[in-house]
Amino acid sequence: MTGPREERAAPKRVTVIGTGLIGTSIALAVRKAGTEVLLIDRDPATVRLAAELGAGTPWTDELADLVVLAVPPPAVAVTLLDAQSRGLAAAYTDVAGVKGPPLAQAARLGCDLRSFVAGHPMGGGERSGPLAARPDLFVGRPWVLCPGAEADDTAVASVRAMVAACGATPVTMDAADHDDAMALVSHAPHVVASAMAARLAEAPPSTANIAGQGVRDVTRIAAGDPSLWQEILTANAGPVADVIEAVAHDLAGTATALRAPGGSPGPVADLLARGVTGHGRIPAKHGGPAARLTTVTVLVADRPGELAMVFQAAGVAGINIEDVSIEHLRGRPIGVLRLAVAPEAGPRLIAELRARGWSVPGPDTEPEETDAADTR
Amino acid sequence: MTGPREERAAPKRVTVIGTGLIGTSIALAVRKAGTEVLLIDRDPATVRLAAELGAGTPWTDELADLVVLAVPPPAVAVTLLDAQSRGLAAAYTDVAGVKGPPLAQAARLGCDLRSFVAGHPMGGGERSGPLAARPDLFVGRPWVLCPGAEADDTAVASVRAMVAACGATPVTMDAADHDDAMALVSHAPHVVASAMAARLAEAPPSTANIAGQGVRDVTRIAAGDPSLWQEILTANAGPVADVIEAVAHDLAGTATALRAPGGSPGPVADLLARGVTGHGRIPAKHGGPAARLTTVTVLVADRPGELAMVFQAAGVAGINIEDVSIEHLRGRPIGVLRLAVAPEAGPRLIAELRARGWSVPGPDTEPEETDAADTR
Repeated sequence: MTGPREERAAPKRVTVIGTGLIGTSIALAVRKAGTEVLLIDRDPATVRLAAELGAGTPWTDELADLVVLAVPPPAVAVTLLDAQSRGLAAAYTDVAGVKGPPLAQAARLGCDLRSFVAGHPMGGGERSGPLAARPDLFVGRPWVLCPGAEADDTAVASVRAMVAACGATPVTMDAADHDDAMALVSHAPHVVASAMAARLAEAPPSTANIAGQGVRDVTRIAAGDPSLWQEILTANAGPVADVIEAVAHDLAGTATALRAPGGSPGPVADLLARGVTGHGRIPAKHGGPAARLTTVTVLVADRPGELAMVFQAAGVAGINIEDVSIEHLRGRPIGVLRLAVAPEAGPRLIAELRARGWSVPGPDTEPEETDAADTR
Repeated sequence: MTGPREERAAPKRVTVIGTGLIGTSIALAVRKAGTEVLLIDRDPATVRLAAELGAGTPWTDELADLVVLAVPPPAVAVTLLDAQSRGLAAAYTDVAGVKGPPLAQAARLGCDLRSFVAGHPMGGGERSGPLAARPDLFVGRPWVLCPGAEADDTAVASVRAMVAACGATPVTMDAADHDDAMALVSHAPHVVASAMAARLAEAPPSTANIAGQGVRDVTRIAAGDPSLWQEILTANAGPVADVIEAVAHDLAGTATALRAPGGSPGPVADLLARGVTGHGRIPAKHGGPAARLTTVTVLVADRPGELAMVFQAAGVAGINIEDVSIEHLRGRPIGVLRLAVAPEAGPRLIAELRARGWSVPGPDTEPEETDAADTR
């Protein structure tokens, strides 16, 4: 639970162009760090709303240390050119989810690439607009920075200080590497989830009765806003196409192997093995090395105060709950509470809960659920 | 939170053949309902272990009301034939995750299909074997029953009573429909998750730094045991191949559209829209209609007792927590706690928590996280 801490002072004055979810959240975060914030948006009502939310004051003609371009990818280069031509700040950054195309366009337009450090904060939510903004939106999350070869050290330092003020962790990458990586960990997974979910659109209604957590997880992100995702996929079309084409190739090959008379186990086994390897490359939710936790399952009444008593029992025993989930049981007024704790704390927690009268079936290690433990 | 309740009495005596995770869990569950259980396994040590765990007593030569065949799919028909030829019980059921092939094989072998009601309980876990067994493994979960046209009413009633004793909800389906549905909601999603995860196996290590919850969810089930999944996929090869071929076709078409000079937005938009529709067909985690919940986010210290105080505050205010998640922040001794509550309870909970000094940024509706809210 330790990581690099940025000790640089936040910039004294920042101008945020684009007061949507991301821009307003950045404004709220740096304001908390003592930075003065000026707000610009092509929609004056949005600027007023962001200002009323405490994000800063509407820009009139002030100069700043740093300009944050929180505008959609296709607008980054032209907005940068305009801001630089008016000399709005000493340094500039953006927040677009794709880095190569805006940088190439900025170079073509003749933007000053010494004062520009491209950036991309990870995080956000299903909602958009300033009303969804939160000062803690980026806390603990990675924030990719792609300083070009021309970038000034002072511009880089200024942007890093702003990232630190937002509580995020800067990760430096080449712009093309960023776009390939985003295709792999965000854009292609969205298309793959959509393609799997699309199969369910044609399924008979009874199918839904037996859907479990597996398909729910695989397809969860397919619920995202289609027009937003259309824009994202189009902006990073080449790298996304490369990944989903490779996925399609593997799936088609697996289908052929499954249909082979007598069975052709090789390709199926190969794909499953590569899937296990690839899954292992993704860090666990909490960052840092994936500590093995013990899960203690408790049956609890589905009523106010019941959870408090369980957590209180853990607290009294000096046990820290690392993760928690609740599953409500269909047609029953009880729920299954799963508490993840350090392995050494498991037996103590079970004893404590049983002593207080709860039904605790016994500890599991790695409780991830499958739909398929139907053999033995 | 209401569903059909089975009021039938549990069978008086059940013989479980195959004392792995599923067989032993069924034994533990029906024992709690007062049923006498006899245990058979080709491995005598496994039977002894299950008996020591309280699952029943080793079978010697007793007759039972019902035999549960908890053996892998390829073993169902021969085990059924053997049990019927010895007249072990009046009714028989199995638990295999594929229904068509064992039923066809049973018919070919000349099994008595009047006393056999094929079944498939949903649920299970990453672990296998009797040590992982739990009497509550099936509580609140669907349990598919596929009685053939020849099945006796008394056999069906006996199996339904056993399912009820396990706390599960019986769902009657045709065997072929079951296999198609399992391909769609379990087997194909596993292959799709593996194919996406396989891409990450080849990625540069820096990619992992920016992986978020989206790709983690899409690929989670790819961690499953490859040899178990090889067996499952092979057993349901045709229906699985149909689904993954259709997914491959959609992905290849999307890649082509993304590469089209000038962009070809139609196929991309179409896939995303179908994905949203299909995702909407999956019931929410809690069963029943997907109630819209409000999420309240609280920053909490990462130490014993802290969660108890939050839940206590909710309990005192009479607010039921419907769902909960904890995200630990990298490099910080605090965590982000998200509490899902009924929409009308949200403002009260926020007020209660703020009054007690917690930092509560404000309510979100539908808090599902994306990696992509990077425009506005």
